[in-house]
Amino acid sequence: MPPTATLSRRERKKLETHRALSTAARELALASGLDGLTVEEIADAADVSVRTFFNYFSCKEEALVGVEPAVLDELGAELEHRPADEAPLDALKAVLASGVDDVEEAMRRWSLRTELVRRHPSLLPRHLAALAEIEAALVRALTARLGTDPTDPFPAVAVAAAMGALRAAVSSWEDAGRKGSLDDAVDAAFATLAAGLPAPRTRKGRR
Amino acid sequence: MPPTATLSRRERKKLETHRALSTAARELALASGLDGLTVEEIADAADVSVRTFFNYFSCKEEALVGVEPAVLDELGAELEHRPADEAPLDALKAVLASGVDDVEEAMRRWSLRTELVRRHPSLLPRHLAALAEIEAALVRALTARLGTDPTDPFPAVAVAAAMGALRAAVSSWEDAGRKGSLDDAVDAAFATLAAGLPAPRTRKGRR
Repeated sequence: MPPTATLSRRERKKLETHRALSTAARELALASGLDGLTVEEIADAADVSVRTFFNYFSCKEEALVGVEPAVLDELGAELEHRPADEAPLDALKAVLASGVDDVEEAMRRWSLRTELVRRHPSLLPRHLAALAEIEAALVRALTARLGTDPTDPFPAVAVAAAMGALRAAVSSWEDAGRKGSLDDAVDAAFATLAAGLPAPRTRKGRR
Repeated sequence: MPPTATLSRRERKKLETHRALSTAARELALASGLDGLTVEEIADAADVSVRTFFNYFSCKEEALVGVEPAVLDELGAELEHRPADEAPLDALKAVLASGVDDVEEAMRRWSLRTELVRRHPSLLPRHLAALAEIEAALVRALTARLGTDPTDPFPAVAVAAAMGALRAAVSSWEDAGRKGSLDDAVDAAFATLAAGLPAPRTRKGRR
């Protein structure tokens, strides 16, 4: 869920086209399969030319589960330039989960992606590579932001823990029937993480 | 890295055979590829019968990247029965990263697995399913241990954050040329997590 608040109009326009193409590709692949899907169909569905498609992606698989380098750069820049006195977790939360105009829309795009990978395991390596690229971009940006030595494990540990907590918060919220707002669920998960993951008070009364 | 300290002799023997078969399967697949590999070869290399192989696994792919249900049960039981007053993160660390007699040996087995998946992406879905099963078993056990409501996101958030931190700690330690002990690196990552991931002190002097 890349933030959009800091983008210029031209960049926002590019991101919109990128998303329109990805969403069209995913919907078409889910509706009628992967094998027969052509770049022409995807471009048509997003109302752009084939040439425009290839300005964004090198092949249909990349449109389905890739990640645009510009999006990675933007994600990293956003994290690096959060207020200097903001704690690492707050900065990560802001970049990963806030600033999204429409959480439901972001969720819908993500669900299309995961459903697609579930149905077509051949997309898995590229999907995982995209996740690893997002993680690596965040680690680089957090390292720059904090001024830590490149061998300091802190940024990698913080990003992995934050991405894990975010994933678990979204899954738990879905499993519990989407009760309450997703924003609140994500906030609660990050607050638990910032508190050092103490055991919640329960009927067993353990700490 | 399942713990071995609490196993009976019979269970330990089973775990040893399971590991011998998995390791043999991985070494053979890495040496001469996946396609021609037979269950007979794997059983021979582990010095057991084909019938014994099928007591543990339903096919060669499962030996390569599956996870034995008994290992999942043991992992869950171990977490559930850690001392009652132990904090969630300490209990998770104990189950995930301690009690391993030989860290180098556990690392070697894990490296064989990840290298195999890298070379043969067809194994990825089963590999990810195994990771998800391990995570789910830990979440169930932590829920039981804490007595939290099944819809409480805490156990899922804690397990995902702990597994992310562990993975990042091991990767950072490898990337930094394996300086110092892996145990110390894992301890430091869990201590950072328990402290709520505060920024380390650096030349930039940010908090």
